[in-house]
Amino acid sequence: MVAPTIKLNNGREMPLVGFGLWKVNNDTCADTVYNAIKSGYRLFDGACDYGNEVEAGQGVARAIKDGLVKREDLFLVSKLWNSFHDPERVGPIAKKQLADWGLDYFDLYIVHFPIALKYVDPSTRYPPGWNDEKGGISTSKASLESTWHAMEELHAQGLAKSIGISNYNGALVLDVLRYAKVVPQALQIEHHPYLTQEGLLKLCRDNGIQVTAYSSFGPASFIELDMVKAKNAPLLFDHKTVQGIAEKHNKTPAQVLLRWATQRGVAVIPKSNNQSRLAQNLDVCSFDLSDSELQSISALDQGLRFNDPLSYGVPMPIFA
Amino acid sequence: MVAPTIKLNNGREMPLVGFGLWKVNNDTCADTVYNAIKSGYRLFDGACDYGNEVEAGQGVARAIKDGLVKREDLFLVSKLWNSFHDPERVGPIAKKQLADWGLDYFDLYIVHFPIALKYVDPSTRYPPGWNDEKGGISTSKASLESTWHAMEELHAQGLAKSIGISNYNGALVLDVLRYAKVVPQALQIEHHPYLTQEGLLKLCRDNGIQVTAYSSFGPASFIELDMVKAKNAPLLFDHKTVQGIAEKHNKTPAQVLLRWATQRGVAVIPKSNNQSRLAQNLDVCSFDLSDSELQSISALDQGLRFNDPLSYGVPMPIFA
Repeated sequence: MVAPTIKLNNGREMPLVGFGLWKVNNDTCADTVYNAIKSGYRLFDGACDYGNEVEAGQGVARAIKDGLVKREDLFLVSKLWNSFHDPERVGPIAKKQLADWGLDYFDLYIVHFPIALKYVDPSTRYPPGWNDEKGGISTSKASLESTWHAMEELHAQGLAKSIGISNYNGALVLDVLRYAKVVPQALQIEHHPYLTQEGLLKLCRDNGIQVTAYSSFGPASFIELDMVKAKNAPLLFDHKTVQGIAEKHNKTPAQVLLRWATQRGVAVIPKSNNQSRLAQNLDVCSFDLSDSELQSISALDQGLRFNDPLSYGVPMPIFA
Repeated sequence: MVAPTIKLNNGREMPLVGFGLWKVNNDTCADTVYNAIKSGYRLFDGACDYGNEVEAGQGVARAIKDGLVKREDLFLVSKLWNSFHDPERVGPIAKKQLADWGLDYFDLYIVHFPIALKYVDPSTRYPPGWNDEKGGISTSKASLESTWHAMEELHAQGLAKSIGISNYNGALVLDVLRYAKVVPQALQIEHHPYLTQEGLLKLCRDNGIQVTAYSSFGPASFIELDMVKAKNAPLLFDHKTVQGIAEKHNKTPAQVLLRWATQRGVAVIPKSNNQSRLAQNLDVCSFDLSDSELQSISALDQGLRFNDPLSYGVPMPIFA
């Protein structure tokens, strides 16, 4: 099984379902990627910050070597970390990340957060994370526009076939639409039934920006991070609305949550370490929810956001 | 009674309590401003969009003529409307607004919203409001940075002694801090016990940006606009926490709400058409709430925002 694709605003095809590499451990990452490709995954969503790009690349290389796929069958995504927003850092770090993966180009390269932090030399600490060498937070002077123009440069050089943004809110999307020479192909945001993001989805739809959801299962992704807010929210897998719909369609709650997103035109990038769930997550476009089912899931919206830098003690109130 | 002042990051003094001109009718505006000056108000918060700058200026002129105040005793605020974000429009419209008021300079001139709309010639429709000539919404190509640099130009010319922003969220504040040559002196935002804005307040405090609250009374300001969300929220004036504290201090709930803000270092700009409430609103720095009282009010936070363009049917999800 391979996921259907959608067409980005530059005509390129992107799989609607991919595999997210956040929190995939280094020791299992290569095998995980290899097995996911075997299961039919074609899109992998990585990032400098996930700290596993070398291993992800090893999995990809092995799959290509074994003849499972060709490079052009895959859609490989990576992200520019906050410490590399200074325009002159964007090219070098993207090239380092490509070298880590063993690739000539990314299919999509994304500004990870609208937060410009002070440069950290990769030879001293990589991935750099949020803190400076003293454990504090130091910002850089790079505006989002200057960073975006450096992203456009990567795109022009063919190092990134598409470029995108992540964790941008509506006001930032409106602004990038003003200053962009290349309109972002994609926006990646937290999106689940507790945070349905109607306004942002419509804005992106109206302007040809494809939205990808992260944390499609809501609190589930954050419990392992010991986040109190996530522990206090009822698991979406256990929610009676979601369970009822799942039973009716003879699918799992996870599949229903992913189908709810894809039916709204939102791409998804679930992660699983379990081979059978991994296959199930990919099989989320073969059934359809009714309009009233979609609406009853959307009605769970509480504006509840988990992935906020403030929740990690980082004083960057980008969503406030 | 005159309100205490706070010092902006450029050393200028701004009154901590002012008078907001939003929804002040044209036929009463001049008298209202005149009487407010008589009562001790020194800061008036106007805007192109409020459609009453000519009348506000008449009130000011009469007060100066009658010897109530001198120009330099006043702190007059106006705002750049969305339709004038194109850099080449900023100077001309500010000069028109100054002419409307009958002034040589504004003490503070603010970007009203982080939304750049298509230019409307003031001779054809003024104030322009949200819609284009066809009743739709048309955007301009001006980035917020380009608009800000035009604001800095006004500042350099002395037409605005201080410059600020409004309705910017944390991510936009972080970005303006990156590209600004003149760091904004002030940020004006919706702020009340249902929307306490802790993250944004801290960011501004850490970066020397003075916050001014609008809609300090929460839903009260929006009920007259027939906003369902506001009608469904319990009035803060009637809230037992607020009422209990008010009784204890022998003050009105309105005074408690304003004192809660000013004690957090947030300036306020209440409006009243009633002469005695107008005086009461100014008398909000002569008593102190205890830490636990402040906290019990802050605990009413629900992240409940009323002044969102989406609520007015304007598809600009700046807070999403």
